[in-house]
Amino acid sequence: MIILSRKASFSAAHCLANPEFDHAKNLQLFGDCSNPSGHGHNYSIEVKVAGVPDRDTGFVADLSKLKTVIHEIIVKKCDHKNLNTQVDFLKGVIPTVENLAEKFYEQLLPEIKKITRAGLYSVMVKETENNYAEYRSKIESCF
Amino acid sequence: MIILSRKASFSAAHCLANPEFDHAKNLQLFGDCSNPSGHGHNYSIEVKVAGVPDRDTGFVADLSKLKTVIHEIIVKKCDHKNLNTQVDFLKGVIPTVENLAEKFYEQLLPEIKKITRAGLYSVMVKETENNYAEYRSKIESCF
Amino acid sequence: MIILSRKASFSAAHCLANPEFDHAKNLQLFGDCSNPSGHGHNYSIEVKVAGVPDRDTGFVADLSKLKTVIHEIIVKKCDHKNLNTQVDFLKGVIPTVENLAEKFYEQLLPEIKKITRAGLYSVMVKETENNYAEYRSKIESCF
Amino acid sequence: MIILSRKASFSAAHCLANPEFDHAKNLQLFGDCSNPSGHGHNYSIEVKVAGVPDRDTGFVADLSKLKTVIHEIIVKKCDHKNLNTQVDFLKGVIPTVENLAEKFYEQLLPEIKKITRAGLYSVMVKETENNYAEYRSKIESCF
Amino acid sequence: MIILSRKASFSAAHCLANPEFDHAKNLQLFGDCSNPSGHGHNYSIEVKVAGVPDRDTGFVADLSKLKTVIHEIIVKKCDHKNLNTQVDFLKGVIPTVENLAEKFYEQLLPEIKKITRAGLYSVMVKETENNYAEYRSKIESCF
Amino acid sequence: MIILSRKASFSAAHCLANPEFDHAKNLQLFGDCSNPSGHGHNYSIEVKVAGVPDRDTGFVADLSKLKTVIHEIIVKKCDHKNLNTQVDFLKGVIPTVENLAEKFYEQLLPEIKKITRAGLYSVMVKETENNYAEYRSKIESCF
Repeated sequence: MIILSRKASFSAAHCLANPEFDHAKNLQLFGDCSNPSGHGHNYSIEVKVAGVPDRDTGFVADLSKLKTVIHEIIVKKCDHKNLNTQVDFLKGVIPTVENLAEKFYEQLLPEIKKITRAGLYSVMVKETENNYAEYRSKIESCF
Repeated sequence: MIILSRKASFSAAHCLANPEFDHAKNLQLFGDCSNPSGHGHNYSIEVKVAGVPDRDTGFVADLSKLKTVIHEIIVKKCDHKNLNTQVDFLKGVIPTVENLAEKFYEQLLPEIKKITRAGLYSVMVKETENNYAEYRSKIESCF
Repeated sequence: MIILSRKASFSAAHCLANPEFDHAKNLQLFGDCSNPSGHGHNYSIEVKVAGVPDRDTGFVADLSKLKTVIHEIIVKKCDHKNLNTQVDFLKGVIPTVENLAEKFYEQLLPEIKKITRAGLYSVMVKETENNYAEYRSKIESCF
Repeated sequence: MIILSRKASFSAAHCLANPEFDHAKNLQLFGDCSNPSGHGHNYSIEVKVAGVPDRDTGFVADLSKLKTVIHEIIVKKCDHKNLNTQVDFLKGVIPTVENLAEKFYEQLLPEIKKITRAGLYSVMVKETENNYAEYRSKIESCF
Repeated sequence: MIILSRKASFSAAHCLANPEFDHAKNLQLFGDCSNPSGHGHNYSIEVKVAGVPDRDTGFVADLSKLKTVIHEIIVKKCDHKNLNTQVDFLKGVIPTVENLAEKFYEQLLPEIKKITRAGLYSVMVKETENNYAEYRSKIESCF
Repeated sequence: MIILSRKASFSAAHCLANPEFDHAKNLQLFGDCSNPSGHGHNYSIEVKVAGVPDRDTGFVADLSKLKTVIHEIIVKKCDHKNLNTQVDFLKGVIPTVENLAEKFYEQLLPEIKKITRAGLYSVMVKETENNYAEYRSKIESCF
């Protein structure tokens, strides 16, 4: 079994706050990240698919198609945007690195299925050199 | 399920030798690393917790608390120290990258439990650009 | 002559637009970067001083003091902030990577002078893996 | 359980094409990568073994022996070579990053067994900053 | 004065040999790099311009235009190509990292002049993590 | 004019203290770095030569010879050593990153002259991701 990974990146603004709470509580929960004027990151995203290589091509997935899917579904919608207000599939979502990983996984899953028989193993989102979250499907149990 | 990772780093000296063996045997087993005058590394450590995001915060764990725990339990005790002689929980331990990963995991586990319901998935210790060890708990079987 | 460099980093939001122009002109000049809702980056900053090592310490500058100055003068004011609206010394400045380098240099210069006889050689600001600007003083001509 | 990883690198040329297909079909399947004059990469390879530390040494595997095995079995044969025509164990193999990971795993497995009781957990091959493939054995199910 | 840098990358094959010499002499001069079947690299290129920021934009140069120029003049012609045989402006040039830096500078200079009043300070070409060459103009003397 | 750079790395222990001062004064001057039990780093070193490419080879310097010189003169003597006590040319030198850059430059200069007509432009020593020192000769004034 092979895990094939493709990386992409984008730059975006965000702010961490739960709209159901007041600013004082958000400040307590999210610290500096709750600054309502926002801050931002250079995000990197790794999309990992798992499967066996195709006999004709040696591909688990066509990396150029994978690149295109990641660009169309994630990068084009998030790059140079405010993640709290300008991305349709993130409406109502607190844009923590954990939630981003899960939402990106959900968005990518149906499109990945169109370009490869390999499964979508995980989506990793890196917010800084020090922090990342990886959302993993249950596929691991098949190994 | 989400794996959330936080990285930290410290600089330390160490020497690889088994005190039960003489220098000739240590030289044979550990090569240059057995130099009794010591050598050192810029270590980086990645602490990975696994769980589901909290509904109120979108956090698997609060990264700022995780940062504090790693700093208090590992970095403050190891940074600018000699790992063979100056770290209490490493007394009697040959400070290979494998043993460091395991001992750091043991030290972190009870403190991580205090700040998150997520499980401590693994602790990775990187000694150079080329070498790392990752100690993993059994939690993976739950995925 | 020795150039000594210290790196720091912060995460911030910004938007590129000249307030004297309308949105259409700003869009033409700054493209995606003119998004009024903002975007953001993980900035890294390298502060370089040039001089000769002190005989007693072997230091061109005390790196721990340099770290403190960079933190107090730049990081504390910019980290998790909106560079267009929340940083006093950037008021009225279009926060391009070039302008940030120059303004950071101006802010650091008097404080660096208090901690070392070495000259402030340059300040480099990196906005993404692909883009950086370095503001250099005339000190190079002394080499 | 500990995963211990050792990295190495080499520079090589390759071209992606299935010799059973004509150039038009290869161009369609492999795009720019099918250029018959070749292109190339700085490859990096991570070899991961999984096991428990030896009591006498604290080693899951002796990293200097692991380094030697990777050099002899992979780097010496691939570095500054054309992967399509000059590597014995890649004859008849389309050198995609997926196939390289699998073939390197096969080549390394018997030699790794000679130097450690730990299992060969995976071999990861990175072709560019954005693309990698990791071939994993079934050993994960034992965790 | 500000130096503004933009990075790009491409993957290519090359072989180091002087066509005026026989293979034995080329092997002696260029070692493994003279393998006639070629090898390859992930090249990165940094293009640095030097000037003062424009008052209206805060730009020394428009980074998006700079990106386009580097792509059109260098990346599109070199990516997934054989540098010895498939790049018009490298015909008859031994593609050492030094010669690439000089030839890229020559190609970029007239195009950079069309998009900025800033001078072309240098072009740096990185062949591996360990090797790079930077071609610098005389502009430094103006600082 | 071209600057050609070659990187190497080594791991070593050191301690910062002036033997003419007592421990209290050293602690005040050098902080944690004065720990007499030592600490350590993964050092990287970049050696930069400046000149014009040779017509027959396209080389400013033969990178494989440069690699050998750096290995023989610096890496072999410093790797897995204690820089305070085990390196002949560092006897009596406080091993700050600034002093290392200068001493490495002095050691390399006569050997570099044997392998290239290019000048030794600078030696950069990186102690951590955040700190480096670069010792530059006067050669820059010739540009």
